[in-house]
Amino acid sequence: MTDPLPSGSTIGILGGGQLGRMLSVAAARLGYRTHIYEPGANPPAGHVAAAVTTAPYEDEAALTRFAGAVDVITYEFENVPTSALDLLEAHRPIRPGREALRISQDRLTEKQFLRDLGLATAPFAPVGTAAELDSAIAATGTPAILKTRRFGYDGKGQVRIDAPAVAGAALDDMAGAPAILEGFVDFSHEISVIAARGLSGDVACFDPGENVHEGGILRTTTVPARLGPAQRTDAVLLAASVLNRLDYVGVMGVELFVTPQGLVVNEIAPRVHNSGHWTQNGCAVDQFEQHIRAIAGLPLGDGKRHCDVVMENLIGDDINRLPALLQEPQCALHLYGKAEVKPGRKMGHVNRVQPAQK
Amino acid sequence: MTDPLPSGSTIGILGGGQLGRMLSVAAARLGYRTHIYEPGANPPAGHVAAAVTTAPYEDEAALTRFAGAVDVITYEFENVPTSALDLLEAHRPIRPGREALRISQDRLTEKQFLRDLGLATAPFAPVGTAAELDSAIAATGTPAILKTRRFGYDGKGQVRIDAPAVAGAALDDMAGAPAILEGFVDFSHEISVIAARGLSGDVACFDPGENVHEGGILRTTTVPARLGPAQRTDAVLLAASVLNRLDYVGVMGVELFVTPQGLVVNEIAPRVHNSGHWTQNGCAVDQFEQHIRAIAGLPLGDGKRHCDVVMENLIGDDINRLPALLQEPQCALHLYGKAEVKPGRKMGHVNRVQPAQK
Repeated sequence: MTDPLPSGSTIGILGGGQLGRMLSVAAARLGYRTHIYEPGANPPAGHVAAAVTTAPYEDEAALTRFAGAVDVITYEFENVPTSALDLLEAHRPIRPGREALRISQDRLTEKQFLRDLGLATAPFAPVGTAAELDSAIAATGTPAILKTRRFGYDGKGQVRIDAPAVAGAALDDMAGAPAILEGFVDFSHEISVIAARGLSGDVACFDPGENVHEGGILRTTTVPARLGPAQRTDAVLLAASVLNRLDYVGVMGVELFVTPQGLVVNEIAPRVHNSGHWTQNGCAVDQFEQHIRAIAGLPLGDGKRHCDVVMENLIGDDINRLPALLQEPQCALHLYGKAEVKPGRKMGHVNRVQPAQK
Repeated sequence: MTDPLPSGSTIGILGGGQLGRMLSVAAARLGYRTHIYEPGANPPAGHVAAAVTTAPYEDEAALTRFAGAVDVITYEFENVPTSALDLLEAHRPIRPGREALRISQDRLTEKQFLRDLGLATAPFAPVGTAAELDSAIAATGTPAILKTRRFGYDGKGQVRIDAPAVAGAALDDMAGAPAILEGFVDFSHEISVIAARGLSGDVACFDPGENVHEGGILRTTTVPARLGPAQRTDAVLLAASVLNRLDYVGVMGVELFVTPQGLVVNEIAPRVHNSGHWTQNGCAVDQFEQHIRAIAGLPLGDGKRHCDVVMENLIGDDINRLPALLQEPQCALHLYGKAEVKPGRKMGHVNRVQPAQK
């Protein structure tokens, strides 16, 4: 399919969390229906979708029915099992494509891909054994961070190594999972570029946002980011090169460290990204609609920002600040409809909006 | 209930068209679920709602089940049958309340209510018989418009009378329905105020928008409207007086003619209003969320505008302009997911956004 997806078509979304929820609303604005596939009961995306399938990713019959009910398939997270993707792909196009998933599912593969593209990354080395960890630490120095190669998010599956003496304990924490040691980058701040590439190969980027993390979880994104014009151009060109190399279709989040020596890629995410939530109130076409436009073969929005925005995540007990947030002028609320509050769980976010200053 | 509606509660919405659809999305942003009640199959609001009941307004069992499944009830249009409202209200609060519905369901009652409030309206007179029509025309002059008192919208149920000689034919068009004759107002332009009143009696208004109609259907709304500071204040105070008099809870659309002698009220609508769609891209809290906040007992947004917006309705074949609209910069699309295109049918709207000029 290279023609635009006809109005009224159904977009299948793997994963029913907040990203699927906001993708579903964006799809509706473009006249599409959505069908959510999610193993967990009562997914947030199900409250704003035309259909929901509740089934595990191992349920071949459910996957087959789902594929038959939708016209194109996308996903809200990168850890969908390969076997499920194989089955689905035999029936319907999956966008973004498998190559982006393959690369981003494994931190080591991702780092090597970025390096092969000529991009700067933190120093890294694969770690499977104690001996490999020792030589990795010798190469990167300490402090360093030992991470599982797969299935990590929001700071999970990571251990900081402050000195070689504690390396053994850190390796035990990996519980035998293949790991990667990453050295520290001396950066002034982190930014991300939310980039999109359409079916026809056109690329559009939103203004870079500046991220602040706490405890491994994104706390705020501020747009515009502190960047000179040349850095801004570098960031956007760098992101575009990643998407082009992957023949990517959809939105990708590209996290970058700003250093005196230039931009260093932290990680890429083959999906809409928490650091792009500001676009909901800052742009005529937000990242969610941009993603839907891309996978539906529609023209991309230009990414232009009409407002300055500070996005703040509402994590765990932050949701208790809701009464005050509801009274705050120019504060746009986006709650996820999650029933249970847990520490570290993203319950919603707010976008604080003001007229663009530059 | 005067406490805020708890997060995760379900809001019942009578009517599954585009207004219900956009209300549903706004409710989700605040962490609520929605349940749509709609006689027609496959309603647009159903694509973004947690639950849908498809049943006529005469189905008492379905209405009772619906009431039992929701925590508060609102509506997207004012012509819900009284018998259905009576049944529902015995189970759950209906907001906005019955008085606003009673008044706005009948053009004559509405005009009398406005006049009793001391507000200017077009000259009007009730018409049931040919003799009444003759004396009404003698009072208002021609041209004038004969309208059914009930169930009119988007120019339907209206006949223009350019000369007394054609009055008989106009009356025949009413097919025996009680009617009202309205004289013409010599106005320079039409504006509307989207006003909201909360459960605690607080009132907030969005900036007045300037409306252009074609063939009885809203074509565009431009914000800011052409108004002097005193006119702007008059418009907002006038709208607030209507809401206060009705002890209203929710969003109301108040259409006003701007004349050299001051503002003349055209009509009021006890619901979110087409001329308020610009708020989706111009305000941190749009009219749909404002309505949900009001009926849920939450604080209202302040209505401040951070962008200038021109809203254009996509009516009937306008939807064929979609490819061009998708390529237009700073053009936010809002399609309604309606399967069939018909002349005069509202298929969607666009908000053209630019940074606020004043």
